[in-house]
Amino acid sequence: MEPLVVEHAAALIVGNELLSGKVAEANLVELARTLRPLGVELARASLLPDELRVLTREIQTLSRDYSLVFTSGGVGPTHDDITIDAVAAAFGVRSVEHPTLAELIRRAYGERCTPAHLRMALVPEGAELALSPSGAWPTPVFRNVWMLPGVPEVFREKLDTIRAWVRGPSPFVSLAVYTKLDEPSLKVLIDQSVETHPDVDVGSYPRWFEPSYKTKVTFDARDRAAVERAAREFVASLPEGALVRVE
Amino acid sequence: MEPLVVEHAAALIVGNELLSGKVAEANLVELARTLRPLGVELARASLLPDELRVLTREIQTLSRDYSLVFTSGGVGPTHDDITIDAVAAAFGVRSVEHPTLAELIRRAYGERCTPAHLRMALVPEGAELALSPSGAWPTPVFRNVWMLPGVPEVFREKLDTIRAWVRGPSPFVSLAVYTKLDEPSLKVLIDQSVETHPDVDVGSYPRWFEPSYKTKVTFDARDRAAVERAAREFVASLPEGALVRVE
Repeated sequence: MEPLVVEHAAALIVGNELLSGKVAEANLVELARTLRPLGVELARASLLPDELRVLTREIQTLSRDYSLVFTSGGVGPTHDDITIDAVAAAFGVRSVEHPTLAELIRRAYGERCTPAHLRMALVPEGAELALSPSGAWPTPVFRNVWMLPGVPEVFREKLDTIRAWVRGPSPFVSLAVYTKLDEPSLKVLIDQSVETHPDVDVGSYPRWFEPSYKTKVTFDARDRAAVERAAREFVASLPEGALVRVE
Repeated sequence: MEPLVVEHAAALIVGNELLSGKVAEANLVELARTLRPLGVELARASLLPDELRVLTREIQTLSRDYSLVFTSGGVGPTHDDITIDAVAAAFGVRSVEHPTLAELIRRAYGERCTPAHLRMALVPEGAELALSPSGAWPTPVFRNVWMLPGVPEVFREKLDTIRAWVRGPSPFVSLAVYTKLDEPSLKVLIDQSVETHPDVDVGSYPRWFEPSYKTKVTFDARDRAAVERAAREFVASLPEGALVRVE
């Protein structure tokens, strides 16, 4: 596999347990916080149940519309683990045993290894493996779809693999201005900033139950000078005493 | 507004801050845990950035494919709060000031009330208000789209409103069987259960770092007798000593 330079990505989080509220979703923020410093924009996330047709259609759409797709979940040995089959179906190929994964599983389970264990070696036919720099389990990649596990402890082990193989065209730069004013009071100043700096993504985040500040205004772009200019001008436009800090 | 009986729902979670990793998404699990006991199936969730065209298209799709849509986020007074406009655009209507909301805002802010504050009274033209049983802020509803706030503390205040107005055709019943066996060892028994009980949703959840059990197998359906039968037969099929508990 070659290292990848990509602009944006989508996440497909799979699992009935997340939609029924049995389990709180925990992987999305980890993926977001991994991609952001790499300069890859996470452009959307979809959470879907364990249904082959639904997953297949979503994988087709996401893999067409975004540079990379990261799936999470549905890769174990049981009947409700259908992500690999859905990726295979999305591209019209079969699921086959990957010899490297099968060998790893045989080595890990030894005499206890059964056909059920070997189901975890299935990949869409033609998939490659992204190797982990720390020696953790390799990640199957088919075209632009990365298939990651759902168990949060195991998902987190794969973040190093993403860092090793994926990066954006340039990093994002972000500054946050914390103020004592509420959003309505800041609206004119924020609107002015948005208009003056169309290439900077300006965000406004009120905190209702936070004693130290009322609104955080963020400035994001790939261009550091543009971000610093927008933040500096916004701070200069604040009334006296309104600024808490810039980070 | 009339109380609603609905089969399924979708969630649309809005906000750049969730996709950039600045903030961890926190409302989805609350919504899931509210809908489940009501007997409403949360069938999918989409997390999208603050982009009018993207949101408009998603609202059109979700409101067509699901009985109800709950949006979260993008309802404040600033430029990046565009959920109301996206719902209006999705149905080809304008955003207009709702007189009841405008009055509430004027009362809350008194002399400090500005046009920026009154932006929070905007709704798609023709929207109704779902009133809160506890007197919290009313929730704008346009056709089958409920527009909820993104700030988690405020989002949670709206869950009572959902409970007051929405319910499913019948509640879900769920049983969980905790076992000492790993998933591959259970696969044959689980497959047998899935085949024998096609109307019961069987889930299998391994825990890799939990001392008290290795796999939780869940049985879910609207039919209590069917769930109890499937769980009972599965427990009976377990080898001696494998059962930890049933919940």
